[in-house]
Amino acid sequence: MAVGLGPLPTLHPVAGFELGIASAGIKRPGRKDVVVMRCAEGSTVAGVFTLNAFCAAPVILAKQRVQGPVRYLLTNTGNANAGTGEPGLAAASRTCAKLAELTGVDASAVLPYSTGVIGEPLPVEKIEGALQAALDDLSVDNWAAAATGIMTTDTLPKGASRQFQHDGVTITVTGISKGAGMIRPNMATMLGYIATDAKVSREVLQNLLLDGANKSFNRITIDGDTSTNDCCMLIATGQAKLPEITKAEGPLFAALKQAVFEVCMEVAQAIVRDGEGATKFVTVEVNGGATYQECLDVGYTVAHSPLIKTALFASDPNWGRILAAVGRAGVPDLDVSKIDVFLGEVCIASRGARAASYTEAQGAAVMQQEEITIRIELGRGACSETIWTTDLSHEYVKINAEYRT
Amino acid sequence: MAVGLGPLPTLHPVAGFELGIASAGIKRPGRKDVVVMRCAEGSTVAGVFTLNAFCAAPVILAKQRVQGPVRYLLTNTGNANAGTGEPGLAAASRTCAKLAELTGVDASAVLPYSTGVIGEPLPVEKIEGALQAALDDLSVDNWAAAATGIMTTDTLPKGASRQFQHDGVTITVTGISKGAGMIRPNMATMLGYIATDAKVSREVLQNLLLDGANKSFNRITIDGDTSTNDCCMLIATGQAKLPEITKAEGPLFAALKQAVFEVCMEVAQAIVRDGEGATKFVTVEVNGGATYQECLDVGYTVAHSPLIKTALFASDPNWGRILAAVGRAGVPDLDVSKIDVFLGEVCIASRGARAASYTEAQGAAVMQQEEITIRIELGRGACSETIWTTDLSHEYVKINAEYRT
Repeated sequence: MAVGLGPLPTLHPVAGFELGIASAGIKRPGRKDVVVMRCAEGSTVAGVFTLNAFCAAPVILAKQRVQGPVRYLLTNTGNANAGTGEPGLAAASRTCAKLAELTGVDASAVLPYSTGVIGEPLPVEKIEGALQAALDDLSVDNWAAAATGIMTTDTLPKGASRQFQHDGVTITVTGISKGAGMIRPNMATMLGYIATDAKVSREVLQNLLLDGANKSFNRITIDGDTSTNDCCMLIATGQAKLPEITKAEGPLFAALKQAVFEVCMEVAQAIVRDGEGATKFVTVEVNGGATYQECLDVGYTVAHSPLIKTALFASDPNWGRILAAVGRAGVPDLDVSKIDVFLGEVCIASRGARAASYTEAQGAAVMQQEEITIRIELGRGACSETIWTTDLSHEYVKINAEYRT
Repeated sequence: MAVGLGPLPTLHPVAGFELGIASAGIKRPGRKDVVVMRCAEGSTVAGVFTLNAFCAAPVILAKQRVQGPVRYLLTNTGNANAGTGEPGLAAASRTCAKLAELTGVDASAVLPYSTGVIGEPLPVEKIEGALQAALDDLSVDNWAAAATGIMTTDTLPKGASRQFQHDGVTITVTGISKGAGMIRPNMATMLGYIATDAKVSREVLQNLLLDGANKSFNRITIDGDTSTNDCCMLIATGQAKLPEITKAEGPLFAALKQAVFEVCMEVAQAIVRDGEGATKFVTVEVNGGATYQECLDVGYTVAHSPLIKTALFASDPNWGRILAAVGRAGVPDLDVSKIDVFLGEVCIASRGARAASYTEAQGAAVMQQEEITIRIELGRGACSETIWTTDLSHEYVKINAEYRT
């Protein structure tokens, strides 16, 4: 059902970043469900994490440990290790300690990531049993296999890659992500791993990831449900023979920033394209706001409205539902007589009422497309925000009503 | 599909309040779609109206006119007259003026109400053509017919009635409501009309309605979409031979308040029970909040979560989704280790993690029921709030994807 999402593009290897995949049989025997990533010594690592107060045990550990030197990222699917309290924290620690023991690094250099059902105890022994196989599989060429290995309800793997030249040296940025439901990231996405061989100081790297996530992962929503396990990591291995980037300025930083932002955006949008039951990829653009926040409030209210989402599924240009959502978004002193709404290039509402030029046939033609832009002009100021989302289909209900059965 | 909603109970007539129903053929020929209500001279009338900034033309007019003497309420279904700008206001005025002309009252004494599709021009001539038939039909015994006449996607009419004695005089409170989708009232419900033969000053009546709506209509949600057309009216005809109530105190006021609150609650909950596609009637009770607002934030986040709603539809005790929703509700400094969650009487999460005593069989048993209470104990203070909602089913998507076809 994925909308406009093809096979994985070429994912260029990143020197100093290896990936290994194995099967622990957490949910189903034989399924690839454990991914180990190794960062070369001296790598800097940045992370953004869910703001959900019920964040999972692995999130708590990874948040602490990302401050120090990082050598391994350990991901499992099939179990989120969330809502598991103290025993969950102990379980996450144990899997990390086991990997540390096998590789001779400090346990604090291993960061855990889990995704899957919330509230079940983590099957520690199964994961531990798969670690050696994952280590034996480590290779810089395993991005595509890892993209598949971190999937849960995703129907397709998600990845993006960019390369650019600087002083005759090729720099690579490659990333993968997973997620299809419980998606309204808040400072991070479901799971995302992006690596580059550039050498970047930790502070610059962290700010780069924050900026990139805010313009990509933090602007997508499928069902408004912020996950307990969202994490996005950016790793700089420093293997490329170029000076370290220690300031957010200059042509090398600018080129890296563009590449990182493009990868963030491509894998973030891929999550929406593969949204549970999605039949449409919807861009909600809000312009003319007095503040960025009111643009976001309007955009998310539209993006989360079940009535708009079902109309999108039905390809029904029921624009009254869009006006109703804008009207309830909580914007103070909203003057509806200044608002215009566009479906694609078609003006459907002008100055708060149906546009004189609008015909149902025009709206229906836009709605038939798989990729639809809803543009709202508030006429209050100069701020803009853009959010990407999906429709709400029968398949969404089916997937989520049957998830645990 | 309505949950626990039977045939209409006996709706006692209210002296001085007559109802007449007619067919204007707005959406389908022959369908009863126009309801006229006549208030005896000297009636006081209170109203609460949607806070949606895109409120419909009839809401704008009714809000203005409820301040003065009110003699007629004119309701049509099949067209919301919302998002229609200045022409919509003129159309609403014209239908009122016609009714005023036919009855010899001032046009400002006629209040309009519309419900149905947003954004289509109001078919003024059709409505005008049905007014005389509605007037000819006026009777105090027409509550049940009016409850049916105001329905749109409702599958059952909704009404409630109470009587009590005071100084040997019987006082009646009777009300009806409509609504099944685009339901998250904000200071009112979709459409509600409640009448009593008590004599009540306008100020006391307005505060009584505000209080009653806040505890009933303003605590229900089906899909989180606040309508453009929500209105709830409370009419006191003063026909009962008792002194006027001019202060919110004393035994007569207390008895009236209880009757009005009970009618409000019964017809508000009836809207949820008949929610689009509903297979469950869900009570979300949030206790132990530091503020009422944070209880509401948690309650609505749970009530609106598509993941929780689909789990309810599937009768799946997927309590991790409840924890995740509580965690993202935006409560400041939420200490998850103090939170308990109950499904019915079963404690599913204790101190932020799965309760030691909990078994899946216990959760499944509660989830099989048609009426389910989710109780969340925040452990932060003494505030509580309760919200009523539904599940999210295939039928909800079907109804809203096919609404205009």
